[in-house]
Amino acid sequence: MADLRKDPVTGRWVIISTERQKRPSDFQIETVTIRPDGLCPFCEGHEDQTPPEILAYRNGSPGNTRGWEVRVVPNKFPALRVEGTLDREGEGLFDRMNGIGAHEVIIETPDHSQTLATMAEPAIEKVFWAWRDRVLDLKRDLRLRHIVIFKNHGASAGATLEHAHSQLIALPIVPREMAEELAGAKRHFQQKERCVFCDVMRQELKDGTRVISESADFLAIAPYAPRFPFEAWLLPKRHRSRFEEATSGEFGSLARMLKEMLQRMNATLLSPPYNLIVHSAPLQEEAGDSYHWHIELMPKLTRVAGFEWGTGFYINPTGPEEAADVLRKAKL
Amino acid sequence: MADLRKDPVTGRWVIISTERQKRPSDFQIETVTIRPDGLCPFCEGHEDQTPPEILAYRNGSPGNTRGWEVRVVPNKFPALRVEGTLDREGEGLFDRMNGIGAHEVIIETPDHSQTLATMAEPAIEKVFWAWRDRVLDLKRDLRLRHIVIFKNHGASAGATLEHAHSQLIALPIVPREMAEELAGAKRHFQQKERCVFCDVMRQELKDGTRVISESADFLAIAPYAPRFPFEAWLLPKRHRSRFEEATSGEFGSLARMLKEMLQRMNATLLSPPYNLIVHSAPLQEEAGDSYHWHIELMPKLTRVAGFEWGTGFYINPTGPEEAADVLRKAKL
Repeated sequence: MADLRKDPVTGRWVIISTERQKRPSDFQIETVTIRPDGLCPFCEGHEDQTPPEILAYRNGSPGNTRGWEVRVVPNKFPALRVEGTLDREGEGLFDRMNGIGAHEVIIETPDHSQTLATMAEPAIEKVFWAWRDRVLDLKRDLRLRHIVIFKNHGASAGATLEHAHSQLIALPIVPREMAEELAGAKRHFQQKERCVFCDVMRQELKDGTRVISESADFLAIAPYAPRFPFEAWLLPKRHRSRFEEATSGEFGSLARMLKEMLQRMNATLLSPPYNLIVHSAPLQEEAGDSYHWHIELMPKLTRVAGFEWGTGFYINPTGPEEAADVLRKAKL
Repeated sequence: MADLRKDPVTGRWVIISTERQKRPSDFQIETVTIRPDGLCPFCEGHEDQTPPEILAYRNGSPGNTRGWEVRVVPNKFPALRVEGTLDREGEGLFDRMNGIGAHEVIIETPDHSQTLATMAEPAIEKVFWAWRDRVLDLKRDLRLRHIVIFKNHGASAGATLEHAHSQLIALPIVPREMAEELAGAKRHFQQKERCVFCDVMRQELKDGTRVISESADFLAIAPYAPRFPFEAWLLPKRHRSRFEEATSGEFGSLARMLKEMLQRMNATLLSPPYNLIVHSAPLQEEAGDSYHWHIELMPKLTRVAGFEWGTGFYINPTGPEEAADVLRKAKL
């Protein structure tokens, strides 16, 4: 018998389809392999092949040359641009505005062969600092309402280049998914005077069946109503609404836990493609008490797409209790 | 400069990214080809390879034998089942219910080599009658709140079998996407005393740039804020909230327009994989004046997925005006 489960934040229902119950070996996984590429524009020494850098952590070397650890450049084919004024316009029934915003690429390492699962923890931590620095800078532009930081790893998860990188999109609107998450969290807070994510963490720690790993600062769980098989969330134990408010100590802990989590996925799911999304409160929004930043990690194991896209309705063949069990027992 | 556009029903914003503007030839399309398959369980003569039929349009032949035009069977690996009672349960913060519902497969033709783009119009019309008959039957089960009828065509759109078929899932809840569409339509109606879809059709007919084709009963448009390149909607001109309320004449018109639309897609987009979703008001819902049933058609041209899934935020590289122009001028 299948199970219908409701996400306590967004109210989204998913079907956990036990008839189709799937173990890792039942998926046709497109293992991500990194091949050497002499022409890669993100490699050290090829700095002239990207637009000029916005930010780089360097050992004193001049901009746009060798000698960096993390490098941020504008996306060569940006979905949005900072230049121009934010014009809003109605066309009869319809509403539009021009594409003001930012679209940046964070090159996570100068070394083509490395990934977040293999890099040293201090190097991963620097990626978080770069995310943070860019958010703090863009936040000063009051036209921008929300920033999404995300990572596509592997071609079938949407990556067009193999070299480890994440992306940042700053938007003049709050996207619907975020607005709903925020509204759900506010609703819970109004009723209970407590953060829903803090409540979820307390319950998961007590119950234990969906916990993947735990450290002093973070908790990794398979969420109660996951949309995708082996979906995992990384939540900071300390309540904060925004990623950029995390402390240096928390970034260190997060580097450790994220690396370990990716190693768990690689060990049990044959180095799958994945998407990582940082969920953080919108820029101009008062969400201090009710919203709780976190990271959602979704290995891409299934091909089915359009139906879920079209209906917002998800059928997941792997229960989170089983997924947590597999990931928890991964040999690292 | 990119364009941010808001869907007038759901309030969903999308980026129409003109920097990445894409013509049909820029996509890597996985053309769907149908190969003969002697083992196909949906072919005529293989009726014993599916669960017993729920419905079939036959020329007097006995059930589960040859001699049918459309045949409906339970899904062999159903996401939900009708048997059992609908138990609702809380687990602390979390809510669940057991998977009561239905999951059926509509085999659209006995002939393996046919598709909705090649079948005769009266045969396509019979597929709509089968959808309707199943909805009218399932509707009597008051535990069910919503029925989604959809079609995955081609492996990369999620089809596991090549033989032309659609699916029906009946749910004990209204999925979030539907609930939002319904709420948006109600909001518009409360403000204006008019159906938002009727308003959209009036504006599109006046403007013309997003119209793909028009008949006495139906209008095919590229929507103002499409999530996917070459997305198309087929709307009945006569206001009705439910698919199953359409008349025989309308089903005839729809068969003609859907076939023609699929031929337009096949001619200009190299016979792409696609998803088709019937949007119709939930079963136990009063939506007569505000909601307007329609069909959404989404060719699967891009691979990017996880980011959009995770954020509810869509970047579309092809504007609807250009998509409509290409589809309108298709050589049939």
